[in-house]
Amino acid sequence: MSDCVFCRIVAGTAPATKVHEDDTLCAFLDIRPIARGHTLVVPKTHAAELDELDPELGAHLFRAGHRLALAMRRGALAADGANLVLNDGRAAFQTVPHIHLHVIPRKHGDRLAFAKGFLLRRPHDPVGTAAAITEGLAALDRPNLDSEGTAS
Amino acid sequence: MSDCVFCRIVAGTAPATKVHEDDTLCAFLDIRPIARGHTLVVPKTHAAELDELDPELGAHLFRAGHRLALAMRRGALAADGANLVLNDGRAAFQTVPHIHLHVIPRKHGDRLAFAKGFLLRRPHDPVGTAAAITEGLAALDRPNLDSEGTAS
Ligand SMILES: [Zn+2]
Ligand SMILES: [Zn+2]
Repeated sequence: MSDCVFCRIVAGTAPATKVHEDDTLCAFLDIRPIARGHTLVVPKTHAAELDELDPELGAHLFRAGHRLALAMRRGALAADGANLVLNDGRAAFQTVPHIHLHVIPRKHGDRLAFAKGFLLRRPHDPVGTAAAITEGLAALDRPNLDSEGTAS
Repeated sequence: MSDCVFCRIVAGTAPATKVHEDDTLCAFLDIRPIARGHTLVVPKTHAAELDELDPELGAHLFRAGHRLALAMRRGALAADGANLVLNDGRAAFQTVPHIHLHVIPRKHGDRLAFAKGFLLRRPHDPVGTAAAITEGLAALDRPNLDSEGTAS
């Protein structure tokens, strides 16, 4: 069994609320979210830091993060924006030594809630939160409907 | 002339210290760096937020950011890590409405200097700083030599 908690999550031997997965990466809710919906995107192959990460896999991590940020706007989280953050190395506040891209949904006027979330890092209804994100991802695959129900 | 300062930098009609450029993106020093070497990577085509950004161009921005982070470790900046940050939307503290990926070099034990840099955001010798980064980028293309001068 791997010492690395993210490798164990990838393998399914440690618990996590996954919101997206493909052949090379996996996205799951941060167990200590700064905001509701805070998601981590990790490569399935262990890489401690950017130095060890295949650049094409890095590009693909970002592709997934980009899509998750859009899903957080489109789905029930109703985000107004997102912070995409990759901390490379302990000097840069990387805590788990397996590369991970943070995708943190943001709302207008959430500065105080964000600061509080940064200190408390409490989970918020993981099942409902994951559903809000996966629903947003699915919505990205459908034509955009406005409130009248007509395609835009 | 564009209203967008990053579009003007891309066009060469606003000043910036560029460290890297290709057909679709441009990287230059932040004029209000949090740390020495703080670089922004921007798409050459205007996109205000991730919603407007071509996903393949987003992946390529990250590819360039990844490479810059490695160059900051390898070159004279001698970084121990980096923060790669993309703030999508005003709600997420995006200040210039043209997508940009921050690449901020970090050193072990720089927490206080980083916090100070975050408040002051003062430029540090742009010409020398850019040279340190471009030298690091060039070093990535050469075989790795250890202190004895033998390839490793
Ligand atoms: Zn791992
Ligand atoms: Zn622009």
